[in-house]
Amino acid sequence: MLRQLEEEKVFKDPVHHSVFVQDLTIWKLINTPEFQRLRRIRQLGTTYLTFHGAEHSRFSHSLGVYEITRKIIDQFERNRYGDWPQEEKLVSLCASLLHDVGHGPFSHAIEEVFRTDHEKWTCDIILGDTSIHRVLREVSEDFPRKVADVICKTYSPPIVVSLVSSQMDADRMDYLLRDAYFTGVHYGSFDLDRILRVLRPCQGRIVVKESGMHAVEAYLMARYQMYWQVYFHPVTRSSDILLRQIFRRAGELYRSGYRFGFLLPQLRLLFDDSMTVEAYLSFDDSAVQTAFAQWVHEKDELLSDLCERFLHRRLYKYVTVEKFGQPLLEELRRQWKDAGLHPEYHLEMDTPVDLPYDLYKPGTPDAAEKPPILVWTDKDELVEISTVSDIIRSIAGKHQGKYYLYYPEDLVQRVAPRLSPDIRERFRL
Amino acid sequence: MLRQLEEEKVFKDPVHHSVFVQDLTIWKLINTPEFQRLRRIRQLGTTYLTFHGAEHSRFSHSLGVYEITRKIIDQFERNRYGDWPQEEKLVSLCASLLHDVGHGPFSHAIEEVFRTDHEKWTCDIILGDTSIHRVLREVSEDFPRKVADVICKTYSPPIVVSLVSSQMDADRMDYLLRDAYFTGVHYGSFDLDRILRVLRPCQGRIVVKESGMHAVEAYLMARYQMYWQVYFHPVTRSSDILLRQIFRRAGELYRSGYRFGFLLPQLRLLFDDSMTVEAYLSFDDSAVQTAFAQWVHEKDELLSDLCERFLHRRLYKYVTVEKFGQPLLEELRRQWKDAGLHPEYHLEMDTPVDLPYDLYKPGTPDAAEKPPILVWTDKDELVEISTVSDIIRSIAGKHQGKYYLYYPEDLVQRVAPRLSPDIRERFRL
Amino acid sequence: MLRQLEEEKVFKDPVHHSVFVQDLTIWKLINTPEFQRLRRIRQLGTTYLTFHGAEHSRFSHSLGVYEITRKIIDQFERNRYGDWPQEEKLVSLCASLLHDVGHGPFSHAIEEVFRTDHEKWTCDIILGDTSIHRVLREVSEDFPRKVADVICKTYSPPIVVSLVSSQMDADRMDYLLRDAYFTGVHYGSFDLDRILRVLRPCQGRIVVKESGMHAVEAYLMARYQMYWQVYFHPVTRSSDILLRQIFRRAGELYRSGYRFGFLLPQLRLLFDDSMTVEAYLSFDDSAVQTAFAQWVHEKDELLSDLCERFLHRRLYKYVTVEKFGQPLLEELRRQWKDAGLHPEYHLEMDTPVDLPYDLYKPGTPDAAEKPPILVWTDKDELVEISTVSDIIRSIAGKHQGKYYLYYPEDLVQRVAPRLSPDIRERFRL
Amino acid sequence: MLRQLEEEKVFKDPVHHSVFVQDLTIWKLINTPEFQRLRRIRQLGTTYLTFHGAEHSRFSHSLGVYEITRKIIDQFERNRYGDWPQEEKLVSLCASLLHDVGHGPFSHAIEEVFRTDHEKWTCDIILGDTSIHRVLREVSEDFPRKVADVICKTYSPPIVVSLVSSQMDADRMDYLLRDAYFTGVHYGSFDLDRILRVLRPCQGRIVVKESGMHAVEAYLMARYQMYWQVYFHPVTRSSDILLRQIFRRAGELYRSGYRFGFLLPQLRLLFDDSMTVEAYLSFDDSAVQTAFAQWVHEKDELLSDLCERFLHRRLYKYVTVEKFGQPLLEELRRQWKDAGLHPEYHLEMDTPVDLPYDLYKPGTPDAAEKPPILVWTDKDELVEISTVSDIIRSIAGKHQGKYYLYYPEDLVQRVAPRLSPDIRERFRL
Repeated sequence: MLRQLEEEKVFKDPVHHSVFVQDLTIWKLINTPEFQRLRRIRQLGTTYLTFHGAEHSRFSHSLGVYEITRKIIDQFERNRYGDWPQEEKLVSLCASLLHDVGHGPFSHAIEEVFRTDHEKWTCDIILGDTSIHRVLREVSEDFPRKVADVICKTYSPPIVVSLVSSQMDADRMDYLLRDAYFTGVHYGSFDLDRILRVLRPCQGRIVVKESGMHAVEAYLMARYQMYWQVYFHPVTRSSDILLRQIFRRAGELYRSGYRFGFLLPQLRLLFDDSMTVEAYLSFDDSAVQTAFAQWVHEKDELLSDLCERFLHRRLYKYVTVEKFGQPLLEELRRQWKDAGLHPEYHLEMDTPVDLPYDLYKPGTPDAAEKPPILVWTDKDELVEISTVSDIIRSIAGKHQGKYYLYYPEDLVQRVAPRLSPDIRERFRL
Repeated sequence: MLRQLEEEKVFKDPVHHSVFVQDLTIWKLINTPEFQRLRRIRQLGTTYLTFHGAEHSRFSHSLGVYEITRKIIDQFERNRYGDWPQEEKLVSLCASLLHDVGHGPFSHAIEEVFRTDHEKWTCDIILGDTSIHRVLREVSEDFPRKVADVICKTYSPPIVVSLVSSQMDADRMDYLLRDAYFTGVHYGSFDLDRILRVLRPCQGRIVVKESGMHAVEAYLMARYQMYWQVYFHPVTRSSDILLRQIFRRAGELYRSGYRFGFLLPQLRLLFDDSMTVEAYLSFDDSAVQTAFAQWVHEKDELLSDLCERFLHRRLYKYVTVEKFGQPLLEELRRQWKDAGLHPEYHLEMDTPVDLPYDLYKPGTPDAAEKPPILVWTDKDELVEISTVSDIIRSIAGKHQGKYYLYYPEDLVQRVAPRLSPDIRERFRL
Repeated sequence: MLRQLEEEKVFKDPVHHSVFVQDLTIWKLINTPEFQRLRRIRQLGTTYLTFHGAEHSRFSHSLGVYEITRKIIDQFERNRYGDWPQEEKLVSLCASLLHDVGHGPFSHAIEEVFRTDHEKWTCDIILGDTSIHRVLREVSEDFPRKVADVICKTYSPPIVVSLVSSQMDADRMDYLLRDAYFTGVHYGSFDLDRILRVLRPCQGRIVVKESGMHAVEAYLMARYQMYWQVYFHPVTRSSDILLRQIFRRAGELYRSGYRFGFLLPQLRLLFDDSMTVEAYLSFDDSAVQTAFAQWVHEKDELLSDLCERFLHRRLYKYVTVEKFGQPLLEELRRQWKDAGLHPEYHLEMDTPVDLPYDLYKPGTPDAAEKPPILVWTDKDELVEISTVSDIIRSIAGKHQGKYYLYYPEDLVQRVAPRLSPDIRERFRL
Repeated sequence: MLRQLEEEKVFKDPVHHSVFVQDLTIWKLINTPEFQRLRRIRQLGTTYLTFHGAEHSRFSHSLGVYEITRKIIDQFERNRYGDWPQEEKLVSLCASLLHDVGHGPFSHAIEEVFRTDHEKWTCDIILGDTSIHRVLREVSEDFPRKVADVICKTYSPPIVVSLVSSQMDADRMDYLLRDAYFTGVHYGSFDLDRILRVLRPCQGRIVVKESGMHAVEAYLMARYQMYWQVYFHPVTRSSDILLRQIFRRAGELYRSGYRFGFLLPQLRLLFDDSMTVEAYLSFDDSAVQTAFAQWVHEKDELLSDLCERFLHRRLYKYVTVEKFGQPLLEELRRQWKDAGLHPEYHLEMDTPVDLPYDLYKPGTPDAAEKPPILVWTDKDELVEISTVSDIIRSIAGKHQGKYYLYYPEDLVQRVAPRLSPDIRERFRL
């Protein structure tokens, strides 16, 4: 099934040094238009507005996930571990490479506003009339289905899913290392070689040797640092809010029959909820940014203002509130409205727990989907890692994320006299 | 003149760790729309199609150049070197930060096709009706002019120009380090701290202490490696050719009265040679990529095909020719035409010497503009470095760059039977 | 008081890149015979037998502690923090540089066997008839006393002691980074620049800004990793045991009137408990290793065997016991004796808690001596860090160190038939 | 012949991350007393007195050479290159591991003074009555001879010698990387992975693919930097001179019948030119340093003074002379003598070309022994690399090393009035 390339191909990668491609199917997949499109989609959405180095694409990341998966399997094969089903190599590599192929531009924001689902798009692309589909079909009739099943986590044997999608999967390992590298947040890095050496296939799962527990602690600590320093950074939340507001406003206008001065066909389809695979594949960060640049000139002042803020990085400011309070929010909205501000746009309450990123929390609903990290003890038992590590138990603990109130400082400042004294004090006006 | 920020601002930077901003003018410049636009312009143009990590922007680079300049001046001030005019600090920092502000999307290709000049745009932006201009005016009436003069290399005292633009200036040091970091070509890196420690202001120039000569050799060797491994990489040349051809074709069509299905106003102005500062400032990589994505659907087949190749990274292949030969090229063009290929598009001869990047070559016309590297000997003489270093003399030597013939392999393959046998052999058809 | 060197001196250091010396007193101290002696004393004792890279000396470390202290003070001065007493700079730098000058070869083992105290030796060297003393006297009559007081933690103002000796002092920061670098245990590294930037002098202490808490968590996590991966490594414990046993045996023999074939004068003084400062200063790792090499030929078989094991790295093996049990130990000793083994030498029970290294444990007796880490909250309060960080609370938690039984496998193997079955099973004989 | 260990052994190595041992013979060799002795011999002799980090041992280096050799062979086997004789793996690995086993303490100095030869000792140890010999004999009767032949460069097939000893052998690659790491001279580092990937077995040699030429240029540039920054550093030359003078003086005294207060048996044998393998194996850096520490108390003032200088790092100073001149030297010696200085000890002329390290110089006598670097061109020819690289030609060029005059500044200063004015000026007295 594996068709060796005559000569190994090598991609220079700043994170893994080199990415090696030995198989023809992988090589062809990389060269499909659908996979090349990932070069035009940033890995971290609007994070580049907080960490200017974070300009890397999902293309780089996808290659990295493939490379880590390849290394893990190589190690399993070199050591001839019994519990690894060798015939699953190609499907594992393909699923690793393609797992993000359905991501659109700034996916998380768009998914929230328009209720799309990148995982569904991934499967549609793999199973639809695409170059990727045709390359996978060359392997066998049912191969595209198999790859899609791995990504949807319904594949059997489950060890393949565990490899591609679990609490310590190749996806997560690559994005932590890559995001640390490109943001420059070096303490988010960890020792990949060491982690790889303590992984073992065992009873249909990828588990960790007990002697490797300290390595996993270091990995989870790096992950913890990345969450608090990068993924949950309140300034990134602010740019995400602007982005969501722009989409929200444009959607509202569209549904209300507003006539846009500029409207790309892909956006029309998105607003109509009738996006096609073909249109989706020509939808990328550039399209979004070009639309925003043109919308600066729209006559809808709210839309125009939001786009200008985003492009020129005049982000909303924020103040911290200790805990969420519906009454407070309603009071604020009321005053906002009375003062001539837009209550639905010029104020937003946010807390990191909404994020698609997660800390390691065994026992929560998310953990049901992402299998937890298991340790293979000296006594040949498998136990969930936080039961044997105080450190991990504390990292996995419930973090009371703060709440933030975001608002356009210049506008609020202008109407300050019309707000109540306690509100003025809260916002330091 | 320097207005200290109350609290120092810090940007996390993957190359320099941190970028420190202590001055209010610098802080305000960074936050102008014109400077923020640089986030949407890639530093290395199409290089990301060869080295997938090379997705960094001119924004990052400009901050880096500022930071290196700041460090050099700090060192001069700390050691109270007599030849450094302390009152030139702010103008040096501003010029460093702003030196690339006139770069448009994929500048080098656009400059070649449309004969624009990014340096001229930089000055227009600094002197025109822009936020940058207004921030600089706050310093003094003639301050924008001063900053522009540094960038145009007409400023006096000349030591400021030497700092910002010479064979070992902050610009070059930052881009070598940054491009090495993001491409992953680590052997293109060098020891910045060590270089900074051997720089001295001397007789209106920045020179190198003799004991630091080995450091400069290592720097020039890193530069040499970057040129051959990255900047002159034949695959990057191939994507550059496609880009130029797209602009060339679109320009031709425009001038011939062709009606585009999609045409951004900025491109119209570019084709008309009537670009304004305002339009230029809304012109970025996104606009170009969005245009290309739409042009895939244009009815002009050549334009459509070129855009598709670029987007899906189906680049032209190349064969090497030992030396340039006009007769060969003409013969090829003739056969191309007879075989039904487009002689002006489906064949391109290229050699790295056309590039805006240069190796260190004292004594050439370019060197006239970029002052050479001077060594301050133990005997208190200033000598050009290649006179005292064999290594540098050999790096600076004339490199007989190979010539490459670029062509669309699929199309040429299709008409192979109609080409002469020696041509078929040359192109391995 | 500070006498600037005409030209700054720079030491190339693999950990800090460069160590800068600007002050004449520091320069002279480094060049004293007593400080140069530290080149001949390994920083990590016998650890090089477990991690072969760990061959670095206390000389390197002492320069590193000085450099970190210099950087912290520079930062305080640059930002003109009010709570830092600027006149304490020189005494702080000197104490940092000299704090380990009283360490002898393999100090921890020798201190345990002969009840010496390296801190006392440090003070004796600073206050005695030495070159160090003379250099310090040049500053002022009472300056040697002041430096000694800082090291003995009796100096006032206490902020100086806090800088040189606390839970996050320059000593600890350097040894963690340095030991990580030389052992190759890179996950024991942390971001020094980031830590330095969040330190503040406050109410006579060095404290941490609240926004820097994640940085401190990363630092303590690195420390935690180094303890478990390096400092408490059971193989290092094994070589330490051999070393102690050699000294113990040699001391016993000496007191019993045994005539050594080879005995360096320094060892004679050590055994006699009449060591002088002068002899101590000529006592180093070489002397110990040379003695061991000669003692291989001693007629006392036990001493000869122990020395050979140490030199040829034939270390004691170990088995783990879940908890300490005096009866078990006594039973083992009895059987050992009956089988012809030496009960006091051929069996040793060990647990990491004996070690001079410690995890961060606020509230324990050790913490009384080493001030804990305080956080300066947004509300201007100082609180102990583990009260606000779950992570740190869990790292600081009580670790139930395992116990190890060490023994010479070859000898025990030989007498296996004479041991009881359960003992044979325990030792897998 | 290869006997796989049940479980792979891993050494943590700061340079290579990990060193993997899969073969039982290698594992046993590492655990012999003769190999463990290398832990007590510094890799870079007295260099630690110039670069304080350079405290690493020949043990670390030998493991590193083994690891690089293992990686090269793995690559050859993985790619099934025809020209690599697979049956030579074990002998290559053993020779790599053991190639330095005959080094004594500060070998280069001792070899110069006493005309010993570490390569001869290596063979004596491999072929003599040693643990190493016995382990090798387990493989086959003639295996020790084979290993010795590789080290003596008489082995056939010659490709094995080329691997272990050539201009780009595993030995050289490890020491450049390791010395760069421990000294902290990071610009002496290069991209090992990249070099390994361009090596090919070809016609009985290890050669370089033409496309890898830039990688070799970077490697040779790193080597060039290490020579001028570290190996030829004039301060290291100064400490080497002291060391040689101590041995020279002690030898003179011994031959003259002087009665030493302290004399280790190994030194007696060395002076008598009757060193045995057994004694040599107990001779290490510690023995030398202990002897020097004791000799400080010898009644021969010259010996005592030299030892004190060495221990306390009061090195000879130097002045530069443009070219060697016998008359100058004789004139100086005469004046030295007249002034009461010791003409044979208190003045030494030195130039780096005496060193056991070399730059890459194809066509010189040394090159005859160390095969040059060959490039495998696209036209399937093998050519010496400097014929196709200007850079390498310039690095390989003749460097007119400066000459240095070394002298004890304090003593010469004291007799300055008795020296002629031009000499005083030359020495700035």
